[in-house]
Amino acid sequence: MNILQQRIASNGTQVSEQIVKVDSFLNHQLDIGLFMLLGKEIFHKFGHLNINKILTVESSSIGIASIAAIYFDLVPVVFAKNSVVPIMAEDMYTASVTPLITETKSTLHVARQYLTPTDRVLVLDDFIASGETASGLCSLVEQANATVCGVAAIIEKEFQGGSARLKNEGYLVDSLAVITKMDETKIYFKD
Amino acid sequence: MNILQQRIASNGTQVSEQIVKVDSFLNHQLDIGLFMLLGKEIFHKFGHLNINKILTVESSSIGIASIAAIYFDLVPVVFAKNSVVPIMAEDMYTASVTPLITETKSTLHVARQYLTPTDRVLVLDDFIASGETASGLCSLVEQANATVCGVAAIIEKEFQGGSARLKNEGYLVDSLAVITKMDETKIYFKD
Repeated sequence: MNILQQRIASNGTQVSEQIVKVDSFLNHQLDIGLFMLLGKEIFHKFGHLNINKILTVESSSIGIASIAAIYFDLVPVVFAKNSVVPIMAEDMYTASVTPLITETKSTLHVARQYLTPTDRVLVLDDFIASGETASGLCSLVEQANATVCGVAAIIEKEFQGGSARLKNEGYLVDSLAVITKMDETKIYFKD
Repeated sequence: MNILQQRIASNGTQVSEQIVKVDSFLNHQLDIGLFMLLGKEIFHKFGHLNINKILTVESSSIGIASIAAIYFDLVPVVFAKNSVVPIMAEDMYTASVTPLITETKSTLHVARQYLTPTDRVLVLDDFIASGETASGLCSLVEQANATVCGVAAIIEKEFQGGSARLKNEGYLVDSLAVITKMDETKIYFKD
């Protein structure tokens, strides 16, 4: 069991057989020391792909994306917004998504100037569940005629099918911890 | 003119005499190399205060808060949420705020377990305008009987009164760039 799996097993709270809360270190309180290890591991998996930009989505993935970027030679991070303040509105790429966790349709926005055809992009999200958000992020990259070099997740809930969907769409997908199953007493990881 | 002032002057877009957009490096696309310099500078200003937690707010300040935490010996970052997914709801500290930029009332939420009486907290936000959000964050800290050691902003728009308000409320406030005035052609900084 690696350090991330240990943290999920010991500090995660199972809300249901579908949802594990990792608020204490990943998406409300952020364990920056852990993020340094995770960022390095993401670089280990994707660092050979000449990535020059990381695309993520607000809010909870911005911290880990920013730390990971340090290992990718300080590439810029762009985060897709779920809503746009009217005064800030401009020409945007958009993708409509319905994440499993909220079951609510939302629209991802990225200003066109921050995704360009020469960009080689790593899509990074904290969770992959149904793959809906990651697929939306990939769509934003492709609308800009940029290249999706890979899709990284911190935690993948394999049993919700997102990784299989994304691989089927042709993307290289890799996650730092893969949950194969959750029941009332235990979280099962892929080794 | 320091490096941040230069970036604001050269890459900022004035939307009005009240608002400057810094989407290209601070709050949509994130310049991680710049963030490393800014994080170090925040530590230079507040590093002597035995801070053991950084409190910020989603979304755009999470990146700089995460990078800054590296210099504060990897203290955890907690970000206040503007809304809470029902399934994630739990016992929360809340503060109602109406930021100048949106002119819309919202409620900041932090789960009670992530602010405790022994915490010595640096409140960090990308902008201080009217001071409404930073003041709300300080309220969350004080509801937990924790200590606000200081309030840091990347950019302070001094002419909108937030810094004066926060100082009046008794907080130590310091910002990396202080804008004293904006007109159609120029942004004026305090040296």
